[in-house]
Amino acid sequence: MKLAMIGLGKMGGNMTRRLLKHGIEVVGFDFNEDTVNQISLTNGMIPATSVEDAVAKLSGEPQKIVWLMLPSGEITENQIKDLVPLLNKGDIIVDGGNSNYKHSQRRGAWLAEQGIHFIDCGTSGGIWGLENGYCLMYGGAKEAADIIAPIAKALTHEDRGWAHVGPVGSGHFTKMIHNGIEYGMMQAFAEGLDLLKGKEEFGLDLAQITELWRHGSVVRSWLLDLTAEALAHDQELATIVPYVADSGEGRWTVVEAVDQGVAAPVLTVALQARFRSQDSKGYSYKLLSLMRNAFGGHAVKTK
Amino acid sequence: MKLAMIGLGKMGGNMTRRLLKHGIEVVGFDFNEDTVNQISLTNGMIPATSVEDAVAKLSGEPQKIVWLMLPSGEITENQIKDLVPLLNKGDIIVDGGNSNYKHSQRRGAWLAEQGIHFIDCGTSGGIWGLENGYCLMYGGAKEAADIIAPIAKALTHEDRGWAHVGPVGSGHFTKMIHNGIEYGMMQAFAEGLDLLKGKEEFGLDLAQITELWRHGSVVRSWLLDLTAEALAHDQELATIVPYVADSGEGRWTVVEAVDQGVAAPVLTVALQARFRSQDSKGYSYKLLSLMRNAFGGHAVKTK
Amino acid sequence: MKLAMIGLGKMGGNMTRRLLKHGIEVVGFDFNEDTVNQISLTNGMIPATSVEDAVAKLSGEPQKIVWLMLPSGEITENQIKDLVPLLNKGDIIVDGGNSNYKHSQRRGAWLAEQGIHFIDCGTSGGIWGLENGYCLMYGGAKEAADIIAPIAKALTHEDRGWAHVGPVGSGHFTKMIHNGIEYGMMQAFAEGLDLLKGKEEFGLDLAQITELWRHGSVVRSWLLDLTAEALAHDQELATIVPYVADSGEGRWTVVEAVDQGVAAPVLTVALQARFRSQDSKGYSYKLLSLMRNAFGGHAVKTK
Amino acid sequence: MKLAMIGLGKMGGNMTRRLLKHGIEVVGFDFNEDTVNQISLTNGMIPATSVEDAVAKLSGEPQKIVWLMLPSGEITENQIKDLVPLLNKGDIIVDGGNSNYKHSQRRGAWLAEQGIHFIDCGTSGGIWGLENGYCLMYGGAKEAADIIAPIAKALTHEDRGWAHVGPVGSGHFTKMIHNGIEYGMMQAFAEGLDLLKGKEEFGLDLAQITELWRHGSVVRSWLLDLTAEALAHDQELATIVPYVADSGEGRWTVVEAVDQGVAAPVLTVALQARFRSQDSKGYSYKLLSLMRNAFGGHAVKTK
Repeated sequence: MKLAMIGLGKMGGNMTRRLLKHGIEVVGFDFNEDTVNQISLTNGMIPATSVEDAVAKLSGEPQKIVWLMLPSGEITENQIKDLVPLLNKGDIIVDGGNSNYKHSQRRGAWLAEQGIHFIDCGTSGGIWGLENGYCLMYGGAKEAADIIAPIAKALTHEDRGWAHVGPVGSGHFTKMIHNGIEYGMMQAFAEGLDLLKGKEEFGLDLAQITELWRHGSVVRSWLLDLTAEALAHDQELATIVPYVADSGEGRWTVVEAVDQGVAAPVLTVALQARFRSQDSKGYSYKLLSLMRNAFGGHAVKTK
Repeated sequence: MKLAMIGLGKMGGNMTRRLLKHGIEVVGFDFNEDTVNQISLTNGMIPATSVEDAVAKLSGEPQKIVWLMLPSGEITENQIKDLVPLLNKGDIIVDGGNSNYKHSQRRGAWLAEQGIHFIDCGTSGGIWGLENGYCLMYGGAKEAADIIAPIAKALTHEDRGWAHVGPVGSGHFTKMIHNGIEYGMMQAFAEGLDLLKGKEEFGLDLAQITELWRHGSVVRSWLLDLTAEALAHDQELATIVPYVADSGEGRWTVVEAVDQGVAAPVLTVALQARFRSQDSKGYSYKLLSLMRNAFGGHAVKTK
Repeated sequence: MKLAMIGLGKMGGNMTRRLLKHGIEVVGFDFNEDTVNQISLTNGMIPATSVEDAVAKLSGEPQKIVWLMLPSGEITENQIKDLVPLLNKGDIIVDGGNSNYKHSQRRGAWLAEQGIHFIDCGTSGGIWGLENGYCLMYGGAKEAADIIAPIAKALTHEDRGWAHVGPVGSGHFTKMIHNGIEYGMMQAFAEGLDLLKGKEEFGLDLAQITELWRHGSVVRSWLLDLTAEALAHDQELATIVPYVADSGEGRWTVVEAVDQGVAAPVLTVALQARFRSQDSKGYSYKLLSLMRNAFGGHAVKTK
Repeated sequence: MKLAMIGLGKMGGNMTRRLLKHGIEVVGFDFNEDTVNQISLTNGMIPATSVEDAVAKLSGEPQKIVWLMLPSGEITENQIKDLVPLLNKGDIIVDGGNSNYKHSQRRGAWLAEQGIHFIDCGTSGGIWGLENGYCLMYGGAKEAADIIAPIAKALTHEDRGWAHVGPVGSGHFTKMIHNGIEYGMMQAFAEGLDLLKGKEEFGLDLAQITELWRHGSVVRSWLLDLTAEALAHDQELATIVPYVADSGEGRWTVVEAVDQGVAAPVLTVALQARFRSQDSKGYSYKLLSLMRNAFGGHAVKTK
């Protein structure tokens, strides 16, 4: 089994290492030449000097499989367009990144017109996937899904943690919802721990409590495992800036809920908490302060 | 008609002025002697040098009416206790401040044991009540409610805007819910205006739009009137600190909703927005940032 | 001044009546022939038998003004396309319906290529606009905006309540946010009144309280005026089905907030409350019940 | 080691079984005599015919340890009061139920005056604790905490999952927050799965996806394990009534957040979702429907 991996960042690089370890041949390309060289030397990846070169090095395979691990949006869009002339009917493009599922549906339909298979593969597991195995959920035609199954097996723990969930689009849709849930869980822990910390009279030790909860409690989870480990080193977090980035998938989940007309309050307010953390101006707060002054004469704090 | 007004701040002072203008005699006391002197000189209030003196100056009235406009909590609690020895059976204490309705229920029951009437009176209208009339909602025994009716009439616009809504406690309860709604309305405007401002490509003029909405739109309201006027002077709000205080009533409304087992999401998130504005540490955001780093290797911003 | 009004429903019909009353000539068309005839007979509208006929009856005007009051989406889209061949350079199409502002931007750009002006006009005021005047907020080129100003004046109360707020798209954008705020205000009142009703021990009279609040309180507003009037007739609402429809604008506002990365929790949960009212299956509740059973052995209610 | 267990329901019964299996002697009492007999016969518990009898059967122990697993509120309150005359200075009462931490603080202070130790012990693990071990978090004096440590070890898996977290009250406080987080996690999963189900075009198999996520994904957790197992049997849930009960701890967590002035939106809306499921009247929805009719003439659905 042999595939080309395009994009060798935090995710693509580790996936390549895991595949090589499990006996899958990988031709790898990244714009960062050092990364290509390093993984080649250390892990035995076949280096490519360009996407064209990577595809060329798949010649002889019954179907060429090109696996993209790229930033979603234009970079992925352009890469797919550029790949088409290099591929033949029956070849397979896998988008393992965090693309919007509607884009994947559109891309899948367009590639189908060219006779090229498209698999949209949601990939979870973060930086721990190399060691623990990834979780893969993918959409696409059964024919193509069957072909990439051995790769999925190699990427996951004991051949579990992967599934062909439905037609093109359903893989990234399922991953999007997964991330929405992740936002909700993270926010639930953050709020709870904030309240524990806020109860100063008890002087609670968050490292102790999160470690404790890992054993037998209802909230035990992988997120808790990681949180406990992190808090064991430092629970004051004095040097961390209270800013939380958000990725597309949290946003798309909320838009999906609106499209479906479904109330998803936890997923929504979890996203909004991050928006709050990103808001350095506080214009809405200023407006509230202004209104309080206007009707009640309450003092406005000024700089 | 004659009453004693204890507390001559923003609310009590203006209410006194309005009562005097409408031919009600007011004996006024405040710890701030200057305030007492000023309202006496300018508006004809009978000055008192102490609460005892104020009550003494009601002698000869069929029932003494003592109207408290004090900060809620201990100050109101202690004042009520201190008043009891000065009053006779059938006299009336009105708490026109923003007390918790459960406290008012307790105080009313205790005062009833002493033979003293208690009226819990929610007062809305802010600094504009002097000119426009206040809105009064009060609870208590019908007998006492009837006695203070002429005072309520004088405080409100064209004898509207006051009502005896139910038993002791119901006045402050109704005011509490009123303020909960107020929080929700304010937050709705703040969010909407924030989104208008955020759409930079349109270069919208918030002063123009809020003024516009005052005429014929579904959102026309007194809060909008005040907001439009304030934004006419300045819509950048560059010098305002994005900090919004909250008073007890917003919090009690949320606790009431929990007690009733009723979902009140707008009233709740409106309160939480203010909490966010008050949170200078952002510990929950730091935790989220920590978790993202722990599972995904995402960079943490540090100071 | 003369214009064609296409769509004579609740909004378009009353707007036509108001325009006629203020001396503006209106050629009116609707698929409902009876409506056309009735407004012609009663109010002096010039009837048209088709859109073509309506446009033809504007011949001689320096610019033809065609005002659409149609359901948003495909109907408006198709009508605009069908109008183009009937119009000349410099003519004006006004979309007074509740279109998505992004669609208006697209339509405006396309019409500009044909030399036709496009005005996107948000219209608030509901069924009361005939009597009280509407609130109009519109976007488009200054040249076109100036031309329709006399019509805007006639539609609004004392020539207030209208404004040219910015470029094409900004009118419907402003109206979208207006409706988002409206959702928040309505939900704030609904929650507050629900809590008043829920406090059974006080036996509160919601008709009394809402009427009371209209005079001098901070929450006084047109929505409160209407609510008080409705509750005066019936506050048990026994025959009303607890189902609340939502229109596109509430949804688009939430999506806009996500696009801007702005927390708009009140506008969001107000929309979600309506989604809840529409959800007859309760699948998420069933899942929660299932989980409680799975970890805690808590009984699941079954049909 | 020997203790008395009062209350042998789902939690107390299984805890007793686990203690006996680990060589701790347990004198057990429950109002349900059959339960007492059954656990005695099957597991070797020492049966008691009353609380007095249970305490009597601890005579000879250096300190009597009485462990309560009772419904919170009055039942626990009264049991503690009734126990005091039966105990001596230095004896220990453990409340392992879900009591409000403020009540535990009060009870602890009162018992300290009598010379009796009080341990408030939050207990997580549900019906799986017998097999997997419980998670115990308790507050109280170090002296008493040390004495019960061997019991805690027996109740937990491999001597992990228990901790003395702080002074009296901190155990139930920590458990309260734990349950708040649990509400948030459950709601996150419920919303996400609801959205997966709602995307009908993909025909997703929720049993497959939840099973899949258990392996390598970021959301892997014990709640997910149980949910996947339950959905494997049935994912239509046709016979489940969409009603979700809530216990005191979810409510107390929201009140705690209000008391601290901390925004905890996920924990709050998760609770409110349950309130929605319990609301059979929908009065707030009716009010919204009424308002829409009042300003916009929108039809109201009636029964």
